[in-house]
Amino acid sequence: MIVIFKQNANQKDIESLCRGFEANGLSIHESKGAHTHIIGLVGDTSSVDIDWVRANSAVEDVRRVSEPYKQANRKFHPEDTVVDVCGRKIGGGHFAVIAGPCSVESEAQIIDVAKAVQKSGASLLRGGAFKPRTSPYAFQGMRAEGLELLREAREATGMPIVTEIMNTEHIPMFEDVDVIQVGARNMQNFELLKELGRLDKPILLKRGLSATIEEWLMSAEYIMAGGNKNVILCERGIRTFETSMRNTLDISAIPMLKSKTHLPVVVDPSHAAGIAWMVEPLAMAAVAAGADGLMVEVHNDPAHAKCDGAQSLTPEAFDDLMQKVRSAAAFFHKVL
Amino acid sequence: MIVIFKQNANQKDIESLCRGFEANGLSIHESKGAHTHIIGLVGDTSSVDIDWVRANSAVEDVRRVSEPYKQANRKFHPEDTVVDVCGRKIGGGHFAVIAGPCSVESEAQIIDVAKAVQKSGASLLRGGAFKPRTSPYAFQGMRAEGLELLREAREATGMPIVTEIMNTEHIPMFEDVDVIQVGARNMQNFELLKELGRLDKPILLKRGLSATIEEWLMSAEYIMAGGNKNVILCERGIRTFETSMRNTLDISAIPMLKSKTHLPVVVDPSHAAGIAWMVEPLAMAAVAAGADGLMVEVHNDPAHAKCDGAQSLTPEAFDDLMQKVRSAAAFFHKVL
Amino acid sequence: MIVIFKQNANQKDIESLCRGFEANGLSIHESKGAHTHIIGLVGDTSSVDIDWVRANSAVEDVRRVSEPYKQANRKFHPEDTVVDVCGRKIGGGHFAVIAGPCSVESEAQIIDVAKAVQKSGASLLRGGAFKPRTSPYAFQGMRAEGLELLREAREATGMPIVTEIMNTEHIPMFEDVDVIQVGARNMQNFELLKELGRLDKPILLKRGLSATIEEWLMSAEYIMAGGNKNVILCERGIRTFETSMRNTLDISAIPMLKSKTHLPVVVDPSHAAGIAWMVEPLAMAAVAAGADGLMVEVHNDPAHAKCDGAQSLTPEAFDDLMQKVRSAAAFFHKVL
Amino acid sequence: MIVIFKQNANQKDIESLCRGFEANGLSIHESKGAHTHIIGLVGDTSSVDIDWVRANSAVEDVRRVSEPYKQANRKFHPEDTVVDVCGRKIGGGHFAVIAGPCSVESEAQIIDVAKAVQKSGASLLRGGAFKPRTSPYAFQGMRAEGLELLREAREATGMPIVTEIMNTEHIPMFEDVDVIQVGARNMQNFELLKELGRLDKPILLKRGLSATIEEWLMSAEYIMAGGNKNVILCERGIRTFETSMRNTLDISAIPMLKSKTHLPVVVDPSHAAGIAWMVEPLAMAAVAAGADGLMVEVHNDPAHAKCDGAQSLTPEAFDDLMQKVRSAAAFFHKVL
Repeated sequence: MIVIFKQNANQKDIESLCRGFEANGLSIHESKGAHTHIIGLVGDTSSVDIDWVRANSAVEDVRRVSEPYKQANRKFHPEDTVVDVCGRKIGGGHFAVIAGPCSVESEAQIIDVAKAVQKSGASLLRGGAFKPRTSPYAFQGMRAEGLELLREAREATGMPIVTEIMNTEHIPMFEDVDVIQVGARNMQNFELLKELGRLDKPILLKRGLSATIEEWLMSAEYIMAGGNKNVILCERGIRTFETSMRNTLDISAIPMLKSKTHLPVVVDPSHAAGIAWMVEPLAMAAVAAGADGLMVEVHNDPAHAKCDGAQSLTPEAFDDLMQKVRSAAAFFHKVL
Repeated sequence: MIVIFKQNANQKDIESLCRGFEANGLSIHESKGAHTHIIGLVGDTSSVDIDWVRANSAVEDVRRVSEPYKQANRKFHPEDTVVDVCGRKIGGGHFAVIAGPCSVESEAQIIDVAKAVQKSGASLLRGGAFKPRTSPYAFQGMRAEGLELLREAREATGMPIVTEIMNTEHIPMFEDVDVIQVGARNMQNFELLKELGRLDKPILLKRGLSATIEEWLMSAEYIMAGGNKNVILCERGIRTFETSMRNTLDISAIPMLKSKTHLPVVVDPSHAAGIAWMVEPLAMAAVAAGADGLMVEVHNDPAHAKCDGAQSLTPEAFDDLMQKVRSAAAFFHKVL
Repeated sequence: MIVIFKQNANQKDIESLCRGFEANGLSIHESKGAHTHIIGLVGDTSSVDIDWVRANSAVEDVRRVSEPYKQANRKFHPEDTVVDVCGRKIGGGHFAVIAGPCSVESEAQIIDVAKAVQKSGASLLRGGAFKPRTSPYAFQGMRAEGLELLREAREATGMPIVTEIMNTEHIPMFEDVDVIQVGARNMQNFELLKELGRLDKPILLKRGLSATIEEWLMSAEYIMAGGNKNVILCERGIRTFETSMRNTLDISAIPMLKSKTHLPVVVDPSHAAGIAWMVEPLAMAAVAAGADGLMVEVHNDPAHAKCDGAQSLTPEAFDDLMQKVRSAAAFFHKVL
Repeated sequence: MIVIFKQNANQKDIESLCRGFEANGLSIHESKGAHTHIIGLVGDTSSVDIDWVRANSAVEDVRRVSEPYKQANRKFHPEDTVVDVCGRKIGGGHFAVIAGPCSVESEAQIIDVAKAVQKSGASLLRGGAFKPRTSPYAFQGMRAEGLELLREAREATGMPIVTEIMNTEHIPMFEDVDVIQVGARNMQNFELLKELGRLDKPILLKRGLSATIEEWLMSAEYIMAGGNKNVILCERGIRTFETSMRNTLDISAIPMLKSKTHLPVVVDPSHAAGIAWMVEPLAMAAVAAGADGLMVEVHNDPAHAKCDGAQSLTPEAFDDLMQKVRSAAAFFHKVL
């Protein structure tokens, strides 16, 4: 951590601050120029509250040099984490496709879609039971009943299920779910993250709409700090000024995450653009950029889907996509 | 709602879609040009899922004409809502200042600050008991104990208390709180919003970091749809590309909200910039732009605050600010 | 074009506006509901100034239905444009790699780099002579002398040259340049675009830092409206809130542009991220998403480059990249 | 300047880099910890190219501590700059209102508007002769003829004139203009900035749509480095994700600029929101936040304005605004 002092800072304030750092076991390296006075703190600065330092009247600015996340940090864990979901592996060269409808709508729908995506080669089934919707008047999901139908679809196909949680109170209902998803709007629902850190189930953590990569990794850290190391990161597009698509897929996040963390990274091209015909090129780009998997919305009747129909593929289009994904994954040295 | 068809759309698909609209009680006005084919839907379109329409293969685009929020809409409720908190009024010409520390740290601290801000003219006391922090290693608030200390501060001063909730499970603990705050990171925690809609307590709803004004009003609508009409909106800065301050205060949101909704709007200049010396000019701008109140962080020892010290005012600086706010509020025809 | 009237609009104002539209040869289709009054304008609305309509006191909002660009619009020109630069083709299945240093620094440097990138398979040579730098104190390029050295490098290798123009007054100096580049900061330098529209030389038009896809296509339209149809679009990253890399590569822009325009699209992964090790994954993603080419910075001594060294590849790293690009281009059915 | 080395950096590379710094007259202060190795450079680092350092393979990151602008920096020029335009002062407590139409359309129009705004108390007349328009098919301004009409309006009223330049080639035509405006789209047209730096005329420099405050000040520095110290900064809204208004007025930029630079700062509320009824609240906020002036669009017939009618005030509305501005300026201790 580097502390930059104000030009006219009071020497007594500086000294008092430095004594405080030393009392916390940090050593201080000073660098003083004509217009600048800087100290570098050496030691474990994760206990130092950057705001506390910044509030000191002698301080102009404070900058972290080392990342504030530890469990998620590749520096301290150079090997790729491979998350194993009932035998389906994600990360470390293993590529997985998670597919299914935006929301579970009926027994027939979820079982149909499950069978179709399984046949095409998806390894996990997704489906929303609890739906975060912008409008209180929109369909809110089948909730507990939707979870039950997902379990039926798992029974019918053997595919592990991935579904979104929105509230700590629902955790008991998710006991039998294989991967719990945290949606973009809950990426900084810290109470939820803490509780999920106490489980031993894989968590799929979607990036918040305007979360920086560091904030996202700090949310993963919340889960990991509680003891749950099985976190899968999911890039799903960020909010920018561009209006021709729903979100802007941050493709650079994939290599950047790969350098900063050992956790697997999957990409959701369906939510990123919000347009079905863009799913294929974005999926190809994700594979090429080094993603460990994809999350794709598939619906047997997109025009009558209860949500996000505009971005859902038909089972036929998904089957076509999977052939291309399989071939591209092999080209980019991944095992599907 | 306006539906724009693709140039080469199948006539049968268009007709089938139109029959569906009519079955839902909507009437259709058609407009057909050389390169465009558009229909306008007349009637109550709030039941129409825009995604469902967009997913139809004949449809190029769909646009809403009327706002998707009703309870929060000024069109259907032209009079300003005045929220009354134990006799302190906010909105409709009444200006209120909410002040206090970022987080409750000790009995002495919160009572000291409460007495100071009361003396300077604040009408409500703020203080965080549950703190949403980016890092799991940072101070997370005093939680239940913090709520208890807030109640003591209320007893000591008579000021109503405002504090943040992070989880539906905590609602019983907030029974005795005067205004429940929803933080920026929980603005789209829809399960929480729904539960708060069942209470009869004022809710202070902060804007999400990258929430549009419409999304923000839809979150207010979630609370109001449940029956709770006492929502106060709080602008606290949005996330942009600018890096010289923490967030960008969206001052235009104040007049824009005033035109779209009847709910009161307060501004938090402390979180907006994250820098204590910017609180005054931003507070003045907020008053001038038509805000109904301010939310200001005050700490008796900012340099040792457990969070957000960099943006907290000392009681002396706050007293100075209050004199200017009082004078400016009068100048801009508000009753403090 | 759709015009939405205010709820309480004066009927006389509406009629007067409608008469004006009709006088301009447009026909009007009306759609009137309980809360909405809308008209659709049918005919050639490109002559209608949307601001003029919006300023009418009866009007609540105006929305374009058809795109405001014509020459660049794929609807009116379904075939891909193939730009031919001295026999090197870009677009319509032809993939081209443009490589070279950020700036021309000396005869030895540019000729060395030119020979190296040619050997590795680049088809065009880039090199900046006029450099747009944020700071007036930074190296501003070798200017006229740099152009001369580029010509020497072309003579030595036979590679066509691509270089940036910053001012209409410099056009005569660029007579002998093969492709003129317009940089991100000049994407809306309309006087420059107009002049370039009068030339018959290919123009490489970089996207502005915060330009929407529509604005970008309107800038292409400026060039094409002048008669110059040879425009190559270059995505180079947009400005967002993310700070871990210089810009955010908008990979979705590739398929979106492909659907909206017939012009070729190349990607500059060097400027997008600003970090040399990210060039490869982003280049692969660009190929996979359907780009028609790449623009890559290569320097024989990045650590001593006069600008943008941090993002430049060494000739060895570029050679390695080219092998991967060649293989990926073939995989994605492009002819390199 | 602070240089952070990679964990596994080669000691020889570090030493070679350090020798280079010393050869440039800089002294080095080292700070070495378990996981970090940092050096602070002391001396005049404005000659050090940050990219050159970042490109070194031993370097993880480089951070500037001192601002890269000098002429515009308040640290080296603590007194407010007061720009004097034919006796009208801006800055240092002097408040000025610049008003007029978006574009000059006819002799009658500009003279009418000029007389009206003068009567209401504006001190400078604005009017566009050269218009940067997104579409090549939109009205591009009256160009040379528009400049002539502005001069006539000045003769008729005595008001100094402010108008936008788009190209270095037009500079001779602007010889007789009182304040030359650089528009948002040309904020980083560095060739233009350099030429304007050679004039002795005040320059009104608008902020680019997505320019950081530092980039904006660097553009001012371009002008000042050439010898022209009379730069007025104009905040006109930035581009964000919010879509309910054209731009987001960055009100915080006013106090931030006031702390970083001595140059005067004016605000353009008309372009910021793009909606006439929002001009008043934003103008009030600008005065309250400490602006030195306003730039307001006024048109005698907004509904028939050739551009930006939607945001133009009528002379009557402007007269009403001026009464409020006059009173607010006095309240906030400015001399109008």
